[in-house]
Amino acid sequence: MTLSKQEIASLIDHTYLKPDATARHIERLCSEAVQHNFFSVCIPPAFVSLAHSCLKDTPVKTCTVIGFPLGFNTSAIKCFEAERAVRDGAQEVDMVINIGALHQGHHDYIEKEINMVAASIPEDVVLKVIIETALLSGEQKKAAAQIVLQSDAHFIKTSTGYAKGGATVEDVKLLKSILGDTKNIKASGGIRTLEFAKQLVKAGASRLGCSSSVEIVEGAGS
Amino acid sequence: MTLSKQEIASLIDHTYLKPDATARHIERLCSEAVQHNFFSVCIPPAFVSLAHSCLKDTPVKTCTVIGFPLGFNTSAIKCFEAERAVRDGAQEVDMVINIGALHQGHHDYIEKEINMVAASIPEDVVLKVIIETALLSGEQKKAAAQIVLQSDAHFIKTSTGYAKGGATVEDVKLLKSILGDTKNIKASGGIRTLEFAKQLVKAGASRLGCSSSVEIVEGAGS
Repeated sequence: MTLSKQEIASLIDHTYLKPDATARHIERLCSEAVQHNFFSVCIPPAFVSLAHSCLKDTPVKTCTVIGFPLGFNTSAIKCFEAERAVRDGAQEVDMVINIGALHQGHHDYIEKEINMVAASIPEDVVLKVIIETALLSGEQKKAAAQIVLQSDAHFIKTSTGYAKGGATVEDVKLLKSILGDTKNIKASGGIRTLEFAKQLVKAGASRLGCSSSVEIVEGAGS
Repeated sequence: MTLSKQEIASLIDHTYLKPDATARHIERLCSEAVQHNFFSVCIPPAFVSLAHSCLKDTPVKTCTVIGFPLGFNTSAIKCFEAERAVRDGAQEVDMVINIGALHQGHHDYIEKEINMVAASIPEDVVLKVIIETALLSGEQKKAAAQIVLQSDAHFIKTSTGYAKGGATVEDVKLLKSILGDTKNIKASGGIRTLEFAKQLVKAGASRLGCSSSVEIVEGAGS
């Protein structure tokens, strides 16, 4: 499988999720996403309306985050966040699972929460489930993938970018071995080179969450 | 001003806000808070009901966090989070401001958001406003204190514990110089010794957010 820069660009959720985000950051992010043909921008909930408006009449989607980055708010809050984000213009929502619930083996709780969020938004809105691999054991990663496989979500997503580690080729392969072609994989966290981006796609990722997207597609290499 | 360990203990919001929080962590936190006469436990929204139930018939309060730790969700979400937290049993709520809005000079937005959250909860629920000092310049810290001074909040709080820095004696003195006795100050983030806790109280803090609370009150020193 050979992958061009253009192909990689078309898989990128161009991301700015720092707490100091301002309108200027978001406007620049949107402009870069249009220029480089990124798939979407992934931005804070408070900026969904702005991004949606900046991206009007372009193919670039608006993506935001739910229960981010700690995942420890209630299911009711996550549903309300998702519903409001869609109302503001989000076409994709990336929700963080309750990581402690996974540690406790409360798999039903997690699946139910994912499905509640899915039920709060229209069917054509893409739901990604962030499992925060850096905080999970191998067994917990497998369990998380099984839960997402059974759930109404469209994607599993590796990381928030706020834990001690991000996406790895090994983790993407592990998730792919469980999810097959039934659910998609978004690799995120620490993706800073074109080469690493390509490795993650070859391992099974069909979407990439990156803050360094412009550097990735403008960097050396083909 | 001399401060005993007991006096310091009575000012502590005993805190566990990691994404891996489980019921066991929260139960232990509550038990420690009762044993050491801490003011409250500060815990994730998903565990408010559990903490409230663990602390029934004790003087220890239940505190949780809103828009935590990045502060970049919408005002509507923060209000809903606060309302639900109180319904679940929270007696104090610590909300994060929209830090990007402060960077942009949108002071009215921040004050309005604080007052919207205040209006979403009963008057006897304590509202603390986290300004995340580590991400602010000196002028921005002063502006944040002025906003809180004019707002319906009860406390200003220095830090989430998730930024690059936490409470400092210098920042507490700066906030105290603006807030006087009109609003209270909660110092939080990086408080790990009794000596530092005492310095922060002497500088003007009347509440301390600590994860190392037991070590602080059981450590060396009087």
